[in-house]
Amino acid sequence: MNNNNPSRQKSLTRQLEGLWQLLRPANVWIGGLSIGVGAWVTGLLSPFQNVLLACFSGALITGAANTINDFYDIEIDRINKPARPLPSGKVSPQTAFFWAIFLFIAGVGTSLLINKTAFWIASTASVLLFFYSYSFKRLPLIGNFTVSLVAGLAFIYGGVSVGRFKQALIPATFAFLFHFGREILKDIEDISGDRAGRARTFPICCGVKAAQMLITFIFFLLISATFLPYLNGEYNLRYFLIVLPGVDLYLLYVIFAVWRNTEPANLHKISTGLKIDMLVGLASILVGIQ
Amino acid sequence: MNNNNPSRQKSLTRQLEGLWQLLRPANVWIGGLSIGVGAWVTGLLSPFQNVLLACFSGALITGAANTINDFYDIEIDRINKPARPLPSGKVSPQTAFFWAIFLFIAGVGTSLLINKTAFWIASTASVLLFFYSYSFKRLPLIGNFTVSLVAGLAFIYGGVSVGRFKQALIPATFAFLFHFGREILKDIEDISGDRAGRARTFPICCGVKAAQMLITFIFFLLISATFLPYLNGEYNLRYFLIVLPGVDLYLLYVIFAVWRNTEPANLHKISTGLKIDMLVGLASILVGIQ
Repeated sequence: MNNNNPSRQKSLTRQLEGLWQLLRPANVWIGGLSIGVGAWVTGLLSPFQNVLLACFSGALITGAANTINDFYDIEIDRINKPARPLPSGKVSPQTAFFWAIFLFIAGVGTSLLINKTAFWIASTASVLLFFYSYSFKRLPLIGNFTVSLVAGLAFIYGGVSVGRFKQALIPATFAFLFHFGREILKDIEDISGDRAGRARTFPICCGVKAAQMLITFIFFLLISATFLPYLNGEYNLRYFLIVLPGVDLYLLYVIFAVWRNTEPANLHKISTGLKIDMLVGLASILVGIQ
Repeated sequence: MNNNNPSRQKSLTRQLEGLWQLLRPANVWIGGLSIGVGAWVTGLLSPFQNVLLACFSGALITGAANTINDFYDIEIDRINKPARPLPSGKVSPQTAFFWAIFLFIAGVGTSLLINKTAFWIASTASVLLFFYSYSFKRLPLIGNFTVSLVAGLAFIYGGVSVGRFKQALIPATFAFLFHFGREILKDIEDISGDRAGRARTFPICCGVKAAQMLITFIFFLLISATFLPYLNGEYNLRYFLIVLPGVDLYLLYVIFAVWRNTEPANLHKISTGLKIDMLVGLASILVGIQ
């Protein structure tokens, strides 16, 4: 009965705590919730059971992605975040790896209970998120693209769960462009740390000016795209009256501010503002659905 | 009556011929036609008058884009294409510039006869195409992104002309990814010429390997995306039976071939194949609309 001695039990508790921390619980909540919002945005929350399944499956996949990220970042975290479950020794790397794979399978498995399209999206997102940690995030632009794409896919996933594929394409496009611009912006902010860590981001390999141009280009496109569903009668005037001052005006300011001052502190402020701006955009869609 | 002397007349004819050549007529046809196909793909060609207006407006904007491109490329064309209207002196740069502006205004003006959404798309595309020639095409990725985006917008433009905004989003997404991958591929092909001309493309500033990764990533996404409208019941089985062997199998081959051999001759062959593959994809959508 060696398994029941106190030190062994303490180690088990420590390990369970570590596995829980690897998920990054707050992050998992956001992952699940954003899919629920994705379903809501399409104007429908029924069948509600499917919405819940999609949220749960999205939460599992988010947890899996966070875990596998810690697995591949162990050497960096030894220096930057020694208290994390892996560098602190709470959980062994091997256990963390199998924990991630288990969560991916559970998340994709849950998607099977929704429908075939959901299964396909969950599988694609899982593969993308795995390779993000494995290599994409160290490649210029491909990492940014992946993060933005998965953020957009969350809406489509929610939409698909209630059988509204096409209605989700518009918020998904907005989310993609929002995240993509913000990712490049954050890469300018992190330029000195990334250079020290030999990461090859877009501003490092193509220059800050090219990155500023890309941000301008993406946000100009996003502003332009926000006009379309209103002009087309897809969303109503309430949408437009929120989007124009609430989202587009701030995006114009961001474009301006990114050219004027590229100090990390300034970029950090802008990047936080963009997060709030996304919520305003989401609200505008929710009140603007015809 | 000095205006009627023969040499003056010959010069006028020469100039009119030059203005016509600046449009690149074959290209203009394709521009107009692709919008018509965009309308057709959404499953509707009525009101037919709007489809014709959209094609005509798209053709005018294509001509404008080609003309402004010659205006900004005059120094390069003096060496590479001395017979073009501008380096040969058939048309003065100033005339070419105003000719382009006139065509842009005519194209955007025509879009006003369709609806507000069409006007907004035509304006955005015109601004993008102007800045493409002015600077974007000399910037890594932003040029590629612009070309791909306008290629995708053509479908949305056609769709909007028949009031089918959402139906056009799927083919537009496919067209965007197809062109984007192909553009990066062509950048690897042109690497030595671009380096000599001091152009800063993605493979030049981030390396061939990053470009290979990006192509792999984009085409993997495209393959994955082609499954969605079938799984979701948006397009029928006929679509899937054409797309799977006709499009996706070739894309897999492209991913493989891009890693194996990056010689310009090989890449050129692949890039031509991709053009044919796009037509197969288009056909699959046309027969696959429910």
